[in-house]
Amino acid sequence: MRMRMMKMLLLLGLCCGPVCCGQNQSDPRDQRVFPVLSVNYDYVQMPFEVSLWILLASLLKLVSDERYFHCDPPRHSSALLRFHLLPRLSAVVPESCLLIVVGLLVGGLIRVMGKKPPVLDSQLFFLCLLPPIILDAGYFLPLRPFTENAGTILSFAVLGTLWNTFFTGALLYACRPAALELLPCLLFGSIVSAVDPVAVLAVFEEIHINELLHILVFGESLLNDAVTVVLYHLFEEFAHAGEVTAGDVFLGVVCFFVVALGGVLVGGVYGVLAAFTSRFTSHTRVIEPLFVFLYSYMAYLSAEVFHLSGIMALIACGVIMRPYVEANISHKSYTTIKYFLKMWSSVSETLIFVFLGVSTVAGPHAWNWTFVTITIVLCLLSRVLGVVGLTFIINKYRMVKLSGKDQFIVAYGGLRGAIAFSLAFLLSSDDFPMKDMFLTAIITVIFFTVFVQGMTIRPLVDLLAVKKRKESKCSINEEIHTQFLEHLLAGIEGVCGHYGHHHWRDKLNRFNKRYIKRCLIGGERSQEPQLVSFYNKMELKQALMLLESNSSANLSTAVTAAAPCARTAGTH
Amino acid sequence: MRMRMMKMLLLLGLCCGPVCCGQNQSDPRDQRVFPVLSVNYDYVQMPFEVSLWILLASLLKLVSDERYFHCDPPRHSSALLRFHLLPRLSAVVPESCLLIVVGLLVGGLIRVMGKKPPVLDSQLFFLCLLPPIILDAGYFLPLRPFTENAGTILSFAVLGTLWNTFFTGALLYACRPAALELLPCLLFGSIVSAVDPVAVLAVFEEIHINELLHILVFGESLLNDAVTVVLYHLFEEFAHAGEVTAGDVFLGVVCFFVVALGGVLVGGVYGVLAAFTSRFTSHTRVIEPLFVFLYSYMAYLSAEVFHLSGIMALIACGVIMRPYVEANISHKSYTTIKYFLKMWSSVSETLIFVFLGVSTVAGPHAWNWTFVTITIVLCLLSRVLGVVGLTFIINKYRMVKLSGKDQFIVAYGGLRGAIAFSLAFLLSSDDFPMKDMFLTAIITVIFFTVFVQGMTIRPLVDLLAVKKRKESKCSINEEIHTQFLEHLLAGIEGVCGHYGHHHWRDKLNRFNKRYIKRCLIGGERSQEPQLVSFYNKMELKQALMLLESNSSANLSTAVTAAAPCARTAGTH
Repeated sequence: MRMRMMKMLLLLGLCCGPVCCGQNQSDPRDQRVFPVLSVNYDYVQMPFEVSLWILLASLLKLVSDERYFHCDPPRHSSALLRFHLLPRLSAVVPESCLLIVVGLLVGGLIRVMGKKPPVLDSQLFFLCLLPPIILDAGYFLPLRPFTENAGTILSFAVLGTLWNTFFTGALLYACRPAALELLPCLLFGSIVSAVDPVAVLAVFEEIHINELLHILVFGESLLNDAVTVVLYHLFEEFAHAGEVTAGDVFLGVVCFFVVALGGVLVGGVYGVLAAFTSRFTSHTRVIEPLFVFLYSYMAYLSAEVFHLSGIMALIACGVIMRPYVEANISHKSYTTIKYFLKMWSSVSETLIFVFLGVSTVAGPHAWNWTFVTITIVLCLLSRVLGVVGLTFIINKYRMVKLSGKDQFIVAYGGLRGAIAFSLAFLLSSDDFPMKDMFLTAIITVIFFTVFVQGMTIRPLVDLLAVKKRKESKCSINEEIHTQFLEHLLAGIEGVCGHYGHHHWRDKLNRFNKRYIKRCLIGGERSQEPQLVSFYNKMELKQALMLLESNSSANLSTAVTAAAPCARTAGTH
Repeated sequence: MRMRMMKMLLLLGLCCGPVCCGQNQSDPRDQRVFPVLSVNYDYVQMPFEVSLWILLASLLKLVSDERYFHCDPPRHSSALLRFHLLPRLSAVVPESCLLIVVGLLVGGLIRVMGKKPPVLDSQLFFLCLLPPIILDAGYFLPLRPFTENAGTILSFAVLGTLWNTFFTGALLYACRPAALELLPCLLFGSIVSAVDPVAVLAVFEEIHINELLHILVFGESLLNDAVTVVLYHLFEEFAHAGEVTAGDVFLGVVCFFVVALGGVLVGGVYGVLAAFTSRFTSHTRVIEPLFVFLYSYMAYLSAEVFHLSGIMALIACGVIMRPYVEANISHKSYTTIKYFLKMWSSVSETLIFVFLGVSTVAGPHAWNWTFVTITIVLCLLSRVLGVVGLTFIINKYRMVKLSGKDQFIVAYGGLRGAIAFSLAFLLSSDDFPMKDMFLTAIITVIFFTVFVQGMTIRPLVDLLAVKKRKESKCSINEEIHTQFLEHLLAGIEGVCGHYGHHHWRDKLNRFNKRYIKRCLIGGERSQEPQLVSFYNKMELKQALMLLESNSSANLSTAVTAAAPCARTAGTH
């Protein structure tokens, strides 16, 4: 990030020639003339280069997003003609691949210019680039499918990742491609076996898969963070210390619960704080969004201080604060939060993929054919075996069974990404002399999954005729029936004496309504019946959506269309 | 910013007791047990402390803004009862004073705890805190009153600041309170005589003065940046070099034009780039706001690289990009930009005032009674003489003369602030052994103007019955008549053969419409007649405003109220 990009600056034509240079402080006698125009690039170097990288990322995003021109009916014909070279390419290649390729090109360019390309710094990645993406994912997590499939997701995340780690690690040790000991092999397995949320999001957002499969793969990629963190620190410690006792293994298991539940707890505390703070912002609307960002970020950082799962903390924080914050803040603040999160996360994502490409050029690499090949084969094998095996058990407890197609997509969608790279990058070269080989192998795995799997998953989804996501039209009818069914099921469970998850959800809802909402939501809005408020929200959304489509013709129809419904609502 | 705030962390109760410490890497034999919970604060220190400071600033903003409870009719009765201690105080004391006092308290607390309080770092101030405030001011600059009073504003900014500098500097040299040479005196004069936009904004936003006076004082505070930058660098060079030739003075004058016009040019280039980029964002709405922020910030940084006026660059960039960007981007992006700028600038402002307080505690101080007293007297005197003298000349050319009251408010509103502090802080102690005395005197002047003038200006405005700002209700009638009058005046000027500013504005408008808009605005919206688009904008604004007031009762009335008007608009 901080490397000299003076050349880039020169390319931008910002540096004019015959000006006095900024170093005139050191030798005042030579340059008596007062400098009319002096240059002092060091002063602004850091923010300027950060801005340049972000600008580059945004422009890339702009260009690579032009593919939508072919999906949507073209409206802006004047802007349409510009980028007609790219769409054909980007209809086949996912954006993440394009960005990596751009990163490779930029890295090559920097290398040609005789400089050392920058590497994706782990601290930068974990403290700046990852949190926005995870917060965006956590804040807008589709809660209902997530909770309904929580068991399946958790099994994949915990048992699946454990299986992958030990299977890959043990077989890698057994094959002995590079004369490694067992613990480094397991460490490598723990790094390489975790599915990456950033890569999954980037690919799955584009293929519009149905909600169930999306939440299964994406939820797994989020929740496996706790397992990965624990295994990584565990094996790092063990590889460092040399020997493992039974007590250590027990502590490792304890550690898993501490890391996972501790992360959730930290996130929960900050989430409640954020919700409570948003209660008092009704007269300072302008800084409302800031509290959401700040508390979430601090939740992540606080979790990271204790090596807890920052990702779990962020998700817990986002999920817990959202309903209360949204009830408290203004509509404009909501728009700001939503847009800003999306903006931030998409730029972070772009930067991550570009930097992955640049880092690949930067090296250092230690290429080992056998090691790399065995790693890729083991990754694929363990993933397939893990998913098939786990599904076999899970399907016994599921109402809606996972079909063979579903299993295939879940297995195939297990992409690896920048988290694995950053974790490997964090290893110290002293303790792990094979670090360069690990890095090279991990980069190869990432490229293999992102390019090969990422590019073929869309045709495969079409070929297998996997159900796509249907456009969600939440009608008032649907809402009534969902609520009715839920109450009914909770009632039936109560009568049966079988306390299933409908019963507990009902209890939680009542508790939430009676006590928590009263503390965390200000104002008088909570007294409104749920159905009426839902109806109003729907109306408001529709009216805004129509008003939003800026043309004058739409304006009149929007408002007149909304008017009769709203009148009826007003008489309630 | 980077100072240790471990104690603060401890205060927040985040640090639990019996956990293993993060330094177990160094001595692995002692701590064989795998650490279930380890602490590694260094890793996240920087972002965590930055977040904490911003959170502190936001919470302060929240508490100090509660004064509005008494102005507005209270709506949220449950939240109303919390902060009833502060309003009485903050009705008298402006927010900026409160924040400085908080900063003093925090600084005192840190000092009591045995640490050295942080100082408002100049680089942090100029590269992080100042740009958001200036961008917010520049982007939402009321262009019409600004251009109509451009002559007056420029006179105050350029001639007034020059007068202040030389008057203060020369008389300070003449009084010889600290046996200073002439050039350091003039340097001090240039630092202390510039009106500060941050301080002016903070106070003038609260007293709701009429638009003319607001733009006079605020415009002056923005445009005097070029003068201050040039004078500061000039005197710094001269004081360093020892002697001044006529050639140097001439170069200084040239430098002023280079700095001012160069800044505007840099801003203009980035503004056009931003406008041009926003033309192609119609399919990537989410990152639209980012371009506005990035290009503006890069304009500021690019100007700063060459010691041009970054403030002028930011304002030029904001003013130039705004009409085109707003025509291109979606309504939600506009909301995001607006809210985010306001949020950012208000937090920056808060941080600046808090840090001013903290820096005051941090010291080092060199108190010199005579020097400080003479400085304050000279500042007041030069300001009054400058404003009265300049107004005497300006009034000969103005249609609407500035009355005595107006002159008084302009002179009295000339607050000093953090820019002066940061400039003085940037001086090197080697070249200027009297730096501490300068800093102390400048802090005293800032405190005097912010506290005494800031606190008394509101009662004085009431006492003198200065016209307040009236609520702007832009009716369609008003718009028609303004446009009609403008065309008429341009026509009259054309007939007379007198090419005044109406003529040139008309030419500019035509040129803009015929060529520039075509390049910079995408889509088909520009074909709409101006009046119809204005009407639609008005309607949209009203409908959104009414829809925004979230309750269900309002929804129906809002939409039904908007409906008949919109129907009429639809038949156009």
